[in-house]
Amino acid sequence: MARVAFIGLGVMGYPMAGHLARAGHEVTVYNRTAPKAEAWVAQHGGRSAPTPAEAAEGAEIVFACVGNDDDLRQVTLGGDGCFAAMSPDAIFVDHTTVSAEIARELAAARPSSLDAPVSGGQAGAENGQLTIMVGGDATTFAAAEPVMQAYAKRVGLMGAAGSGQLTKMVNQICIAGVVQGLAEGLHFAMEAGLDADAVVDVISKGAAQSWQMDNRAKTMVRGEFDFGFAVDWMRKDLALVLDEARRAGVTLPLTALVDQFYGDVQKLGGRRQDTSSLIRRFRG
Amino acid sequence: MARVAFIGLGVMGYPMAGHLARAGHEVTVYNRTAPKAEAWVAQHGGRSAPTPAEAAEGAEIVFACVGNDDDLRQVTLGGDGCFAAMSPDAIFVDHTTVSAEIARELAAARPSSLDAPVSGGQAGAENGQLTIMVGGDATTFAAAEPVMQAYAKRVGLMGAAGSGQLTKMVNQICIAGVVQGLAEGLHFAMEAGLDADAVVDVISKGAAQSWQMDNRAKTMVRGEFDFGFAVDWMRKDLALVLDEARRAGVTLPLTALVDQFYGDVQKLGGRRQDTSSLIRRFRG
Repeated sequence: MARVAFIGLGVMGYPMAGHLARAGHEVTVYNRTAPKAEAWVAQHGGRSAPTPAEAAEGAEIVFACVGNDDDLRQVTLGGDGCFAAMSPDAIFVDHTTVSAEIARELAAARPSSLDAPVSGGQAGAENGQLTIMVGGDATTFAAAEPVMQAYAKRVGLMGAAGSGQLTKMVNQICIAGVVQGLAEGLHFAMEAGLDADAVVDVISKGAAQSWQMDNRAKTMVRGEFDFGFAVDWMRKDLALVLDEARRAGVTLPLTALVDQFYGDVQKLGGRRQDTSSLIRRFRG
Repeated sequence: MARVAFIGLGVMGYPMAGHLARAGHEVTVYNRTAPKAEAWVAQHGGRSAPTPAEAAEGAEIVFACVGNDDDLRQVTLGGDGCFAAMSPDAIFVDHTTVSAEIARELAAARPSSLDAPVSGGQAGAENGQLTIMVGGDATTFAAAEPVMQAYAKRVGLMGAAGSGQLTKMVNQICIAGVVQGLAEGLHFAMEAGLDADAVVDVISKGAAQSWQMDNRAKTMVRGEFDFGFAVDWMRKDLALVLDEARRAGVTLPLTALVDQFYGDVQKLGGRRQDTSSLIRRFRG
């Protein structure tokens, strides 16, 4: 069992840190709003610390799961950030979805760093069934991987620093295409007067099948979106994708278009709704 | 067992008519180029006829699987077309992917008509594992459905005349989105220097999963496209979709964009390649 720190107790981090405690690790938590850290300790034991630096003192692995690049820079390299307080051989694992650029920047500052964004959403974090896409060196990965198993369904080392973030970006690009196709298809079906549920039952057995069709089509038809992965988060991720694509000289016309459509959905009041609310761009 | 006619022995119709013969039906075939009809009779028995009208004489069910709206109009309503020769209570079943408009036109001319486009491709036709999306009245459907089981995995009555075609259109819209997302995602992955196969292995277990990802991603990475459903056929289908959407006042921005990209792939020499060759729009 390891002595670990966990920075960021949001909807993902809170249950992930809980799985580490349940697996027998000695966990010190830090959260920007302290009452949540106190609630976590009351539920799981362990300790809370007033700063990322103090949480990281003496830890073998420091995990972070915060909001964005700025938050991540603050809790690592900022005043009271964890990097200055970590022992030379301690490992840093970032579970935030951020730019590949900051992942490389942190790995340059501390080579024993891993970028390790997750997919599987809040339900995956709570059930300990996340997919973790990791960038970094193989030795660091081998040391951290058994600990991450506390909340993982699948952990893959994808390449050097930044590769975890890039893999997560591929995931989001593919989802953008699937959901947009599904939104247009269901919109067309409903406007054409078809029974959209019956259409899904038939076409989901063939080449049009997708996880999104199996799990989101019928709620899209019913206009139910108050669950799942929020449009605001998807737009944050698509901004990272499009920035990276611009840097790499890669054009992604569908991804750019879907990002704009999600902007329309935000205007329609869908900021906290599941990504399947993309169909609202067409149906209101 | 029924006495049936089958008009159109292309890559789909030839094996479909064969399944009817194997199921014990008495089959008369017609094909525009006669030697193929003769080859079919040599293989399966039955008879061939020199015109659609002569093939249809005395048949309880007349099937068609031809190329497009014009071909279909020719073999039904044209000179030597089957409609004039069919007995009053005979059923017409069209397996061609055509416009909903012509499906309604044929049903107006002969109420015991079904529009019944299929999905599953050449392999599905050969293995008798097609999905059949049917429009028409319930009585006609009930009479024809047991015969279509000779080559079906699933047969669904989707609504009144034209509903089979509209359902097939929904299928193609959804596929356009999935394949475009996959093309952009894999293009991005390769440009970013990731091992695209390893990326697919990880992300295909979650919310980005699709039939296309499971069955086409790795061949897309290898640039293999000489199989499957051809770009020319997909463009024909997307033209039907976009015409119908224009008529219905529905905008389908992704579908319109992907149709344009398939036009680029045609220019690159991909006319006979699988729809997954859409990635060539980005990688050449």
